[in-house]
Amino acid sequence: MIVSPQSMPFAEPLALQSGASIRGYSLAYETSGTLNADKSNAVLICHALNASHHVAGVYEGQPDSEGWWDTMIGPGKPVDTDRFFVIGVNNLGSCFGSTGPMHVNPDTGKVYGADFPVVTVEDWVNAQARLLDRLGIQALAAVMGGSLGGMQAMSWALQYPQRVRHAVVVASAPNLTAENIAFNEVARRAIVTDPDFHGGHFYEHGVIPKRGLRIARMIGHITYLSDDVMNEKFGRQLRGAVAGAAREGYQYTTQDIEFQIESYLRYQGGKFSDYFDANTYLLITRALDYFDPALRHNGNLAQALAAATAKFLLVSFTTDWRFAPRRSREIVKALLDNRRDVSYAEIDAPHGHDAFLLEDPRYIGLVRSYFDRIGKEAPR
Amino acid sequence: MIVSPQSMPFAEPLALQSGASIRGYSLAYETSGTLNADKSNAVLICHALNASHHVAGVYEGQPDSEGWWDTMIGPGKPVDTDRFFVIGVNNLGSCFGSTGPMHVNPDTGKVYGADFPVVTVEDWVNAQARLLDRLGIQALAAVMGGSLGGMQAMSWALQYPQRVRHAVVVASAPNLTAENIAFNEVARRAIVTDPDFHGGHFYEHGVIPKRGLRIARMIGHITYLSDDVMNEKFGRQLRGAVAGAAREGYQYTTQDIEFQIESYLRYQGGKFSDYFDANTYLLITRALDYFDPALRHNGNLAQALAAATAKFLLVSFTTDWRFAPRRSREIVKALLDNRRDVSYAEIDAPHGHDAFLLEDPRYIGLVRSYFDRIGKEAPR
Repeated sequence: MIVSPQSMPFAEPLALQSGASIRGYSLAYETSGTLNADKSNAVLICHALNASHHVAGVYEGQPDSEGWWDTMIGPGKPVDTDRFFVIGVNNLGSCFGSTGPMHVNPDTGKVYGADFPVVTVEDWVNAQARLLDRLGIQALAAVMGGSLGGMQAMSWALQYPQRVRHAVVVASAPNLTAENIAFNEVARRAIVTDPDFHGGHFYEHGVIPKRGLRIARMIGHITYLSDDVMNEKFGRQLRGAVAGAAREGYQYTTQDIEFQIESYLRYQGGKFSDYFDANTYLLITRALDYFDPALRHNGNLAQALAAATAKFLLVSFTTDWRFAPRRSREIVKALLDNRRDVSYAEIDAPHGHDAFLLEDPRYIGLVRSYFDRIGKEAPR
Repeated sequence: MIVSPQSMPFAEPLALQSGASIRGYSLAYETSGTLNADKSNAVLICHALNASHHVAGVYEGQPDSEGWWDTMIGPGKPVDTDRFFVIGVNNLGSCFGSTGPMHVNPDTGKVYGADFPVVTVEDWVNAQARLLDRLGIQALAAVMGGSLGGMQAMSWALQYPQRVRHAVVVASAPNLTAENIAFNEVARRAIVTDPDFHGGHFYEHGVIPKRGLRIARMIGHITYLSDDVMNEKFGRQLRGAVAGAAREGYQYTTQDIEFQIESYLRYQGGKFSDYFDANTYLLITRALDYFDPALRHNGNLAQALAAATAKFLLVSFTTDWRFAPRRSREIVKALLDNRRDVSYAEIDAPHGHDAFLLEDPRYIGLVRSYFDRIGKEAPR
């Protein structure tokens, strides 16, 4: 499936939750499949930290450019583009095409940098809703996302209950725990205290806070994987160990790579620091921290979710310690307290939080049958 | 109880596991209690990353200078200094009095810095054994430690089986998992890539890689606590929240402190960076990474522990995800496979890895009764 990115400009200001507003921005998006005559087959895919509007398919002439959820979305796939019109959108403040910190603020004529307004999950949903208005789509057959993307799917059902028939929330949570916030904060501190960050205005200095970005990504990677899968993939294997050599081959070094897991993390950190924007990292982790629909309801999630009328599918993974199954169960319980239509699956997968991006047959099969059901339903 | 630090110089070289050796070093140590006539009541306490020879009591005129295991050690306490002669020793390469990276290498006349030799748990045990030789102590009634200190206690029983009657191993593991190594590596990278690290020779530049040390300590703190205790202590509480104010008081900031957990971590990181040595951090985390007594036995821990003839007490804490109970159980099983005398307790405590330093009554009571037993035993 060949796809191509598009860009939608928005001149009019968007009011943000913080009280600030942003104008003259654009959103990068991609669509696949065909919108049907009554415009009832649209599915919106929301992305997490390190992803974009490029959810599925490849770009012309770039066979290795598969979208980040290509296992899930495409012709004949669980979210079947022969049946659904799938929209991927890059969020405001990201660094993959939509307006973000590296762009010029029309109010000042200067690059935003650290002055890019703080955006929340709710703000992203409002911006996505405006994009749907432009595309002439009143209601979504489904909104779907994993992790931070799942928070957006949940928020859609709360902010625009009449526009969402189904919300598919994978490996997500009703808010972050103190430990989740703590990991985000360490990553942010690594970036902000990198001397190349320059208070977030590094663009004008011609440098990039790569040291901080590398550390941030290494921390992230640890939390995406389970202890088990790390032991299985890397264990205590030495980098220098070659077939036939003695197992005990320590180099006794404090700064060089000794274990394979170190090599893996350094590689992942280095790659990430080559393409990800430091200010975007701060913005997106803060959107995670701030998300908390129960906050305005004295912490009562059931009360908060009363506004949602969509049908829900929730999926969690047993070894995901970042967004553990019990967090998904909190959402399930709050929806059931409101007598909503909820399906929930806890997949016994070894891969930790990363499992939501992987091709587990039970998980894939479950999403397939859920979207079959959506496809057969009459639009309300 | 008033204690005072002492220092023991060692002129003769100590051969290290890496093949290197170190000479002209000294060890800082403290003792409390009285060595009995047959020298059979000595207890050696081994420390973990951020601790020292100052295990218990206070320094003259400094009432707030309690040792790091003062809850456990002292007159009438579980490790009763009215009965036992307790020795605390600061390890080689540490930064609290023993020879370390900030001292002068007698071979070069220069400060060691990053050239301080890599030291292992086994090297520390050898150095501690030499100290005992000097003190005229042939055999220990017990060697005891938590976390990395527990690894030393275990290693004592393997390296000097005839010199150890009891090994008390708390919140420890037979080696690090890939995830443990991963956290150590991220912390090390934060330090090493801090521009003020200067390849480990920052002393001569008059700077300290505080940015890296802060990040390292923040990561450490997250792994010392349980998710539960973090939620209980901090939850999603806002720093700016004041009594009576609306609960929703976000400031919408990416760089300033918003949540209490952020404030706590920044404070802990800052405090640590004021006193801990960056090269010591690298050395001690590497000693953790390298410890793996089963390595020379094709990963067979039972075979590795066959050399140990001491009696063992192992303690783990249910919410410790850094050195989880299953890691202690591996040691217990390997000892039982060798028909050794082993006691094991899994304490249902909410505090994560930190629990080993806290005053849980069941834990304290258990250690008390175990040391009662030791005190009543005839020396072999």
